[in-house]
This record gives sequence, C-alpha cells and structure tokens, in this order.
Amino acid sequence: MDRKISLTGIKPTGMPHLGNYMGAIAPALELAQEYHAHYFIADYHALNSVRDAHELRQMTYEVAATWIACGLDPEKVLFYRQSDVPETFELTTMLMAFTAKGLMNRAHAYKALVQANVAAGKDHDFGVNMGLYTYPILMAADILLFDAHVVPVGKDQVQHLEMAADIAQTINANYKDELLRIPRAITHTNTALVIGQDGRKMSKSYNNTIPLFIPQKQFRKKIMKIQTNSQEIHEVKDPQQCSVFALYSLFATQQQQEDLAARYRAGGMGWGEAKTALYEVLEEIIGPKRAIYNELMGDTAQIDAILQKGAEKAREKAAAKISQLRKAMGFN
Amino acid sequence: MDRKISLTGIKPTGMPHLGNYMGAIAPALELAQEYHAHYFIADYHALNSVRDAHELRQMTYEVAATWIACGLDPEKVLFYRQSDVPETFELTTMLMAFTAKGLMNRAHAYKALVQANVAAGKDHDFGVNMGLYTYPILMAADILLFDAHVVPVGKDQVQHLEMAADIAQTINANYKDELLRIPRAITHTNTALVIGQDGRKMSKSYNNTIPLFIPQKQFRKKIMKIQTNSQEIHEVKDPQQCSVFALYSLFATQQQQEDLAARYRAGGMGWGEAKTALYEVLEEIIGPKRAIYNELMGDTAQIDAILQKGAEKAREKAAAKISQLRKAMGFN
Repeated sequence: MDRKISLTGIKPTGMPHLGNYMGAIAPALELAQEYHAHYFIADYHALNSVRDAHELRQMTYEVAATWIACGLDPEKVLFYRQSDVPETFELTTMLMAFTAKGLMNRAHAYKALVQANVAAGKDHDFGVNMGLYTYPILMAADILLFDAHVVPVGKDQVQHLEMAADIAQTINANYKDELLRIPRAITHTNTALVIGQDGRKMSKSYNNTIPLFIPQKQFRKKIMKIQTNSQEIHEVKDPQQCSVFALYSLFATQQQQEDLAARYRAGGMGWGEAKTALYEVLEEIIGPKRAIYNELMGDTAQIDAILQKGAEKAREKAAAKISQLRKAMGFN
Repeated sequence: MDRKISLTGIKPTGMPHLGNYMGAIAPALELAQEYHAHYFIADYHALNSVRDAHELRQMTYEVAATWIACGLDPEKVLFYRQSDVPETFELTTMLMAFTAKGLMNRAHAYKALVQANVAAGKDHDFGVNMGLYTYPILMAADILLFDAHVVPVGKDQVQHLEMAADIAQTINANYKDELLRIPRAITHTNTALVIGQDGRKMSKSYNNTIPLFIPQKQFRKKIMKIQTNSQEIHEVKDPQQCSVFALYSLFATQQQQEDLAARYRAGGMGWGEAKTALYEVLEEIIGPKRAIYNELMGDTAQIDAILQKGAEKAREKAAAKISQLRKAMGFN
C-alpha cells in the first residue's frame, strides 16, 4: 500500500539545541510512522548566508549527523541533500515562468526586510539578495518535485506553502493536467514549550540554549547553569515555578516526575540535586545519540555514503518528474 | 591553439526575416571564423511567453533549422539547446545568492515594464512574472557556465552583460579565486539597416517583414509588394530613394548594383522589373538555404540528432564548470 508523502526541509545552520529537538526534530521524525517520509538538507538555501565552503560543508555534516543520531533511519525514509538533486533547479526555473512577481512581493519575510529598511531610512531592498527574495520558489520546487502531500512547517512558513500550491495550480491550469500535486501544510500545534537557561523560551537569539551534542562535560555544565530562584536548601520549593522542573517534566517518566516533585515539596533539596536529576534524565536520552553523532562526525565518509545512497533514490524520482514536466511544456 | 570563446543566445520566437538575417544571424555566424563559437537556443527564456508545448517545440525546430540553413556548421561550432544543459539552472541558483535585488530593479527592460504599468494606473508589477524579472540571472548563467570571453549583443542587452560581469566579480571576490570568467559584450555597430516593405526598418512590430523561409511563391509575392513611388515606366528614377534598390544593394554584387542603377537612371524601367531583379538576387542566396530548411523541417529527427550531439559536448564542459563551483562553495 502506498503511503502518502511527507517532506521535511532541514536547513544546515549549526548544531541544534534541546528546543529544536523537542519542537522540530522529534515531531518531524514521527512523520515516518504515518507517511513515506522525505527529509532533505536544504544546503542551497543556506548559500544565501553561508559564504564559506568549509563552513557550509561542516554545517551539512553536523545537521546530517544530528538527524541520524536523533533517530532518522536512512533505510526507512528518503534522506538526501538538496544540492545532490539538481532537478530541483530546473524545476525552479520552470516555476519562475509561472510565478507573478506580485506574489513574491507579498511574502511576509521579504516584507519584514523591506519594512526594517524603510524604518532605518535605507533603500527598501538594501541587503536583500535574489536568493532570499526567490526563496519561496526554490522551496516550492523542493516540495513539488517529490509530489509531497504534506509538509510540516512552522507558522512563519505557512504562507510559503500557500505560494507553492498557488504556483502548482497555475501550471496545472495552463497545461490542463494534474502535473503537480497541491501540497498541504501541517503545523505542529501541540509541541511543548522548551525553556532555556534563563527561563525564557530556548532560542539562539536569547543565547540561552543547551546544544544537543556538545561534549558531555559541557552539556552537564549548561544544565547546572540553569537559573533558579535563591531559595535555601531547607526551604520548600514549588516545582511548577521552576525552569529545571519544567525541562525535567519534558523528558522524565511520570514516576520520575512525581518523585522529584515530592523532593521539591518536602524541603531539604538543593538546586544542585534537582539539576543533577535533570542532567541524569537528559544524559540517558542524549548520551547514546551523542555517541552516534560523534561517531559519524569522526568519519564523515559514512555520512557521505548515506547521503549518496539517498541522492540516488531521490534523483530517480526527481528525474521522472522533470521528464514528465519537460514533455508537457515542450522541452524534449 | 585555443581560440577565445564566443557565445550567442538564440531565442526561439518564430521564423526570422531578412532583417534578422542581415542584422543578427549572418554577423553572429561570422564569429565562428575568429572564435570558438557557441550558439544555443534559449528555450527556457521562451517559456516566459510561450505556454504551449507544441508551439515551443515547433519554434525550437524552426530556429534550429534556420540557423543551420543559414550556415551554422554543427561540426565546427558548439550548437545546443539551453534546456539540454540543466547545469545552467544550478548555476542560476548559485548566482541568485550573490545577486543584489537592487541590481535587478535597475534592469532597463524591467523598469520599462514598471513605467508602462504606472502610466496605465496599474500595480507597478502588473503582468511581470519572475522568469521575466530574473531573466538577467538566467542569461548570466548561460554565459558564465561556458567561460565565454565575448557575447555579441544588441544595445538593449549591454546592461545584461554588465550584470553578468558584476555577479561573476562578486563570486570571484567572495571565494578569492577566478572561478568565473568576466565576459565582454561585443555589439555589431556596422550592420546594415534593412528596409521593410513599407520603407521603414524591417521589423515584426511594423508588420513589414520578408520572412526568410516562407515558400518561394510567397517569398516572391512579399518582394513584389514592396512599396515604391508612383513614377511611370518611362520616367527616370533615383536608386538612392528607393526601398527596392536599398535591399538590392545589400545582396547584389557591385557589378549588379551598377547595372541596375543604370537601368533606374535611363528611364524605361518599370517597378516590376526592379523588384524581379531583387527577387532573383535574393532567391539565389535564400533558395538553397530554404531547401536545407525545408529538408530539416521535413525530418525533425535530424535536428534532434544534431542538438543531441551538441548537448553532449556542451554538458561535458558544463559539468566540469559546475563541479569546480560546487567544490569552491562547499557542496560535495
């Protein structure tokens, strides 16, 4: 039985943190249970900001190793690098011809850049490159090339999905044929809020993250530095008002949570004890993944081989799709 | 000895006329004497306006047959279809990341469209598609992919060449390497003005053209319909004030020109006689080319085979270039 296709784009932008893991990676990996899941590393999207070859290569390895370490099974899903599927770029060129410029002008991300430029008294396109501006078209090509039924996206990407659907419909209407599948966005609404070291949402922009696969010692240190209140050891503590407990409850079993909550309420527990409990629970989950990550990063040829295999499968599909489109458009 | 590379883009837009032949095709074919000449059919550029597969395919055949009939020798030059070299589209994606949007905003062709929209009280991007807007980037990819030294262009395309050079320089500067050759425009300044049937410049927009390879009878009819003044047969005529003679002088030998001029000045020559002389001179040149054209159009598999062979040679070069760029940028 053919399962529907899901497609997840992964931007290589440095090592993910616990918040990324819970909010994006873990839910995206769950898609593999219901869908024929596709995951690709969007390295050409990264070219808009990463202008150094070594850095781009390194980031690509890191993100590939991360996802495999987190449970992505290359034997069961389709896992490939965008740059290994050049059919993407031919489809992009096709889509360009059917995309009204007005549609791009209305992209939220672009409009925000323009607004910021105008507010700063600069030319409204200052610092905008064409890769950034046409990003939604490249993204549409990523999706439409593989006939994806669903694409998991954050709220900020929903509009891009609508654009992909728009362009696909324009092409289908022009050639009077269902050439391209109209994709649907799925947004994770029930993902947990992951708190950072300072009690705010964990985010790189707050500089409060716990990166996933830093060395064990540093990982422990990051956890020990989570901010708590200044209550003394003997005082009774409220687990519901504590960042350490908030994180603990995301990763610990029900029993573990109840046990630690009891320790909070009984008094006589120092913050070090709570943080150590959190560290132990996290290390049990992250430790084995870190080992896989380190193994892969120590032998990147393994990663290359995995991506190469994925690329071959992906290109087979992509080539068939492009061939169908070329015929329909009059390229032969 | 390695000759320098010239690259000529040919847009498939219906059958060329005598004006195109003299003003563009013949001078472009002359490049093959000095340069390692590349000619490609820009069928993806045509996609912005040709939305019908049959029409696009037909136009591509027509333009290929036309150039071969006019003397393009596929054994001596590189002749290929843009759509057969998908490396073009990957390079386009690379260039996008290094092209400031402001550069595109300054393109004359785009600005003219905006101006017309504003004058008509429409949204300034009305009717502009992204293929049209990003056309200079695709054109830059066409050129840079083959390390072209020179590109013959009309005055309206000089800016596009400057843009290609700009983008190439940005990339070379970023990667601190001469990855891309900076192309130079060459403009034909000495091409003859070809007069149309109504005495104005021959141009599709004036509807006064003599298409190159219409059937012989129609070709003759077009020539016989060239507008002349209303002088009678017996009157003395001025060859310098006559569209028929102007065309004649472009195609006839010096001796033929002197002979016909004498007939003009002697009186007793009707316009039919002058037009017949023009027809005969033209038919001598166009007739054999029309025969080749008709033979190719009667067996398009021949055209496919020629373009296929060209594509193989072109892709070899293109693949090497893309491979070099991918390595420099960090895709591997």
